[in-house]
Amino acid sequence: MNITIDREILLENLNVISRGLPNKSPMPILTGIKIETTDTDLFLTSSNTDISVEVLINDVSLKISEPGKTVVPGKQFIDIIRILGAKKINLYLDENNSLIIKGDKSEFNLKVMDYMDYPNIDFVTLENPLILESSELKSIIKETVFSTAQTEKKPILTGVNFNNKDNQLVVTATDSFRLAQKIISLDSYEDFNITIPNKSLDEMSKVLDSYDGKISLYFTSNKLLLKYKNVLFQTRLLDGNYPDTSKIIPNNFPIIIRFNRDELISAVERVSIMSPKDKEKDKETTYSIIKLSIKKDRIIEISTTNNILGSASEEIIPTDIEATNSITIGFSSRYFIEALRSFMSTEITISFSGEIRPFIIRGDYDVNLTQLLLPLRMD
Amino acid sequence: MNITIDREILLENLNVISRGLPNKSPMPILTGIKIETTDTDLFLTSSNTDISVEVLINDVSLKISEPGKTVVPGKQFIDIIRILGAKKINLYLDENNSLIIKGDKSEFNLKVMDYMDYPNIDFVTLENPLILESSELKSIIKETVFSTAQTEKKPILTGVNFNNKDNQLVVTATDSFRLAQKIISLDSYEDFNITIPNKSLDEMSKVLDSYDGKISLYFTSNKLLLKYKNVLFQTRLLDGNYPDTSKIIPNNFPIIIRFNRDELISAVERVSIMSPKDKEKDKETTYSIIKLSIKKDRIIEISTTNNILGSASEEIIPTDIEATNSITIGFSSRYFIEALRSFMSTEITISFSGEIRPFIIRGDYDVNLTQLLLPLRMD
Repeated sequence: MNITIDREILLENLNVISRGLPNKSPMPILTGIKIETTDTDLFLTSSNTDISVEVLINDVSLKISEPGKTVVPGKQFIDIIRILGAKKINLYLDENNSLIIKGDKSEFNLKVMDYMDYPNIDFVTLENPLILESSELKSIIKETVFSTAQTEKKPILTGVNFNNKDNQLVVTATDSFRLAQKIISLDSYEDFNITIPNKSLDEMSKVLDSYDGKISLYFTSNKLLLKYKNVLFQTRLLDGNYPDTSKIIPNNFPIIIRFNRDELISAVERVSIMSPKDKEKDKETTYSIIKLSIKKDRIIEISTTNNILGSASEEIIPTDIEATNSITIGFSSRYFIEALRSFMSTEITISFSGEIRPFIIRGDYDVNLTQLLLPLRMD
Repeated sequence: MNITIDREILLENLNVISRGLPNKSPMPILTGIKIETTDTDLFLTSSNTDISVEVLINDVSLKISEPGKTVVPGKQFIDIIRILGAKKINLYLDENNSLIIKGDKSEFNLKVMDYMDYPNIDFVTLENPLILESSELKSIIKETVFSTAQTEKKPILTGVNFNNKDNQLVVTATDSFRLAQKIISLDSYEDFNITIPNKSLDEMSKVLDSYDGKISLYFTSNKLLLKYKNVLFQTRLLDGNYPDTSKIIPNNFPIIIRFNRDELISAVERVSIMSPKDKEKDKETTYSIIKLSIKKDRIIEISTTNNILGSASEEIIPTDIEATNSITIGFSSRYFIEALRSFMSTEITISFSGEIRPFIIRGDYDVNLTQLLLPLRMD
């Protein structure tokens, strides 16, 4: 193997490939990046068994004077290409099983791994894709993934559920203390019901970070393949049935309050400095409890009491309020802020069903996004 | 106690006070900030026993309607003042032993600590100061403190030695693998020989970060007090005699090479990616070894070999070179880069005494600063 290529092009593709690289792996070969060329194209592959990534490079700057294939230590290879100052980079295999990396006055000699050890990565066959805008998928991830469970107690809850029925795609994430739901109308696509691991969605979001345009999604029963430009990004899916959450969202709200989103976030953040951190056995239920109540003159008070430190309170004048009765309701400040931050809207609406019932947040301009929180008991 | 003050003024002073606050302390009262007022002035004090800080505030925005004194939980008090949006802040003690902090629509109620528990902080008497420019002391700290020992094996080496004799102040730091030395001429001041803990110098540097102007230093046998504007910053000194390092710096250099500083740093950083991390028992001697050698055509090669990963090399054309013989010398890349970074000069000179002798680095414009490194054996 002997190739030259613009460093920028190689680095851009390695940044994508890095999303599939494990830090360490029970299979050491997977800490490597597979490099393979035909006479005209360069393929790079990485895999951590959950996620596999492949890029095809046929940039004009690529010159393949001798095709070949090898596996190089992934982290070190990326570090070297990142730190080199050169515009053009020359890569070739020498007789001592090393990849020589040359650029300007720098020369690196990187011992390669055994190509034969690298497992065959089985990418899904490219048939019948669902086409979405990259920005649409990135929004869905941002709006839902934070509500997935962080522990493996119920493994299915560590993923985000995508359930398409009659061209209505319902995307749901819940850790059983809160729920995020986004509904999207699809043009026309067969029904599917899959649950994607939260880590895979985080990586997918990073991979798509600098890309705007159409993406293609290919489904099988246990894998999802994302294709865009020259990139294949594949993830395993979670086994098992996602719980039915359709009846959790209440639909009768005696109290509806409108807020300026940023004003509300600031007030909650200030009060949270003094809020008690209750640690239960389960790490997932570590929260800071704050209290929201309607005061006289229809002013909203956000407050908290900490037995050791003291207390804090903030008054907010809501944009609008419809209330047939008063309410005092406690909840996790972190969950509340994460839910509020998922909205793009300047104005958001919180609808309460009762002091011990879940409440929901919606935004003026965030179409079909619902965030739900369970209240917490205050002692 | 009942006072109002501009939030900005209070916060600026609390940032100084925070340098003396311990994260935790065997004496819980020391996690508090002492607040004390006369009819006209506000005093804030913090101490972690090594470092004590006091500020006196008599800003025009300060209104003291009722003088008083208290001790408040330090971290929480600073967090609250930092996050408040208000321009003016009102602080008063209520009947329930709480400090009420009011600003705009926010109200915090912070339980206070027992003022009687706070130890008396004995600041050095203000007599016969050494006057320096703040920028001068900050430079000295930046140029030397990184070379102090990070372990307590020889406690005296965790400090920087300031030795003034006949108005020549020699500042030295060494961890016995490297040495930093700065020489300064003083106007006229009595001899002293003190060793200041590295952590105190780090905090001193942060305190002075936003201040340029004259500072006053007051010495006793076991304490140093820094005074500037409205701030007193006092640190304990290290016990014991600092080792005599006067004979360590060689004075005969058969090889002298001049480099562009940034070019050399970049080359060393690139090569270091591949350099072996040798861990000896002592954490302090964890280093990456790189090799410098003079090649034909008077080109300098920086290289490294890693038994597992491979190797790397860089060629640099020096600005100038005087050499009666060739040399190949190994050393810690981290220590080398830290030494190079301590210079402001664009051009630096490295003077070699021999392959197994210490070598020194000096800069064109960094007057009287010497960095010395011990070579490492290469296997």
